[in-house]
Amino acid sequence: MKKFVNDPKNYVAEMLQGLALANPDTLRYVPEYNLIMRADAPQEGKVSIVQGSGSGHEPAHVMSVGPGMLDAACPGDVFAAPPADYVYETVKLVASPKGVLLLVNNYTGDRMAFEMAEELSQADGIDVRTLFVDDDVAVQDSTYTVGRRGVAGNFFVLKAVGAAAERGADLDELVRIGEKVNSVTRTMGMALTACTPPAKGSPLFDLPADKVEMGVGIHGEPGRRREPLQPAEAHVRELLTAVVDDLPFVSGDQVALMANGLGGTPIGELYLVYGLAHRQLAERGIEVRRSYVGEYCTSLDMAGASLTLVRLDDEIADLLAAPAQTPIRVF
Amino acid sequence: MKKFVNDPKNYVAEMLQGLALANPDTLRYVPEYNLIMRADAPQEGKVSIVQGSGSGHEPAHVMSVGPGMLDAACPGDVFAAPPADYVYETVKLVASPKGVLLLVNNYTGDRMAFEMAEELSQADGIDVRTLFVDDDVAVQDSTYTVGRRGVAGNFFVLKAVGAAAERGADLDELVRIGEKVNSVTRTMGMALTACTPPAKGSPLFDLPADKVEMGVGIHGEPGRRREPLQPAEAHVRELLTAVVDDLPFVSGDQVALMANGLGGTPIGELYLVYGLAHRQLAERGIEVRRSYVGEYCTSLDMAGASLTLVRLDDEIADLLAAPAQTPIRVF
Repeated sequence: MKKFVNDPKNYVAEMLQGLALANPDTLRYVPEYNLIMRADAPQEGKVSIVQGSGSGHEPAHVMSVGPGMLDAACPGDVFAAPPADYVYETVKLVASPKGVLLLVNNYTGDRMAFEMAEELSQADGIDVRTLFVDDDVAVQDSTYTVGRRGVAGNFFVLKAVGAAAERGADLDELVRIGEKVNSVTRTMGMALTACTPPAKGSPLFDLPADKVEMGVGIHGEPGRRREPLQPAEAHVRELLTAVVDDLPFVSGDQVALMANGLGGTPIGELYLVYGLAHRQLAERGIEVRRSYVGEYCTSLDMAGASLTLVRLDDEIADLLAAPAQTPIRVF
Repeated sequence: MKKFVNDPKNYVAEMLQGLALANPDTLRYVPEYNLIMRADAPQEGKVSIVQGSGSGHEPAHVMSVGPGMLDAACPGDVFAAPPADYVYETVKLVASPKGVLLLVNNYTGDRMAFEMAEELSQADGIDVRTLFVDDDVAVQDSTYTVGRRGVAGNFFVLKAVGAAAERGADLDELVRIGEKVNSVTRTMGMALTACTPPAKGSPLFDLPADKVEMGVGIHGEPGRRREPLQPAEAHVRELLTAVVDDLPFVSGDQVALMANGLGGTPIGELYLVYGLAHRQLAERGIEVRRSYVGEYCTSLDMAGASLTLVRLDDEIADLLAAPAQTPIRVF
């Protein structure tokens, strides 16, 4: 294993320490519960938004804390759901009079932890609601899910509810907006290489030098099939066709298009992928109004990419355009 | 080779097409000369800033075009200097009445192309000056340089002159500022893995599974030595000691600290590296005032990282804090 790591057991904690040291004025790291929160959370007049899932998907979600985005993130260990009591403690720390929205990708372990935390918090009188994201079209049910997986499309749900929360929307309104964005967001990804979890020390699966995993999950779960490595144009066409046909997106639609890197793919390749996808959408009469290229939801050091489309209407386009700020990006 | 690429000969052009498609309002791609420029360049009241070098180091420099940063970037093919006549055409396209500053990392091929372009432009009556960056402490002279190499520290020189140019500074003032920032900026990097150029299709060098290349160049050039893979703490200490001792940085200094990824290292590991470096600096009495974590200057898909320190005074700190915007970041 070739990684920058000390004791693999401390990988997540040391990453979070670095994140806090780099952002002393805006972020707070709470080691007892392994969480990152806005230094100025909770805000009285705003619903607080909390997300958590296994680590290894950075910048989702610990590097997505800030104005217009998350109030706190409670990560688990690499590819492992956070303990329910840590989620509960996170909710208590950022609970606002307007309530707390939990944003959860649809994995069985994460659902269990967040549903338990929601119950405990509600018993304390905190107004809590939970939103699930399941944008991955690759497979119905999977290694770790009943139903579809939540992957990079989570970004768009978060960006929209984050913007609405800053504007003072209440919990019911945030749930409405989040469910709406999730309902028009679709993603599929593919792996060129496997990823290596620090504690395992070896690749999570074997992928031959001439094969790709089409529809891979962000924890290395199997996708639709293995197929030969091909020119980028062909891989992009297969990803995009799966995404477009699923909603379906049709001629005349206006969309946000994201080319997301899975951790080990350089940004130059991601722009190449983005350009191919943009032109293939134009051939279909689908207009890209908003563009996102880079790493939003990764799988450790996996080489690969995913494509996400969001069908825009004026409400969603307006929320995506609202200002937001995280440790690594300003939107 | 596992990359998102069609015909490797078109890798750079297709990347630039994607970059332009993702930023239709702010960037212009000129395929005849393989360049990316601000859609609103040149600005009458501002010195234009141009950078070029081989491709494969993205986001440097084609993704660093925008207000407060570059007016244009003229990349060569992967790891190859741009043709002198393309640099010359770039200068003509963005020439402003206040002149043009060329920002060049110290590699022999790049120096030759830019010096020739400078001469041609001056013969046309364009006021042009050239600034060289040579922040890499790893080796004196190297495969492609006489003298030190220019690497990730280039970002700080560009950020400072970019901010000063937006404020109306003239060419002499920009040269003064750029030389000053370069004189207090030091970098060293290390590779965990080699990189694979698309046209070559195989790794540029062999690096055993239990070894790292300490002091590697951003084109895979040899560094100081190969050594066993160790815990991150030890590697960070070696990098930081080389950087600190070179200027030298001393107790009481205030610095900007950058943990830069070389292309294949996930951002979680970069924050871990950042945190270790930050704490090791604190042990030495050196205070981090500004933090930079992510990819700024890469080497295709190489796994690895570099550390850069800049000794701050009020002038440099102020210029680094000025607003700037590129396709992938807002500073």
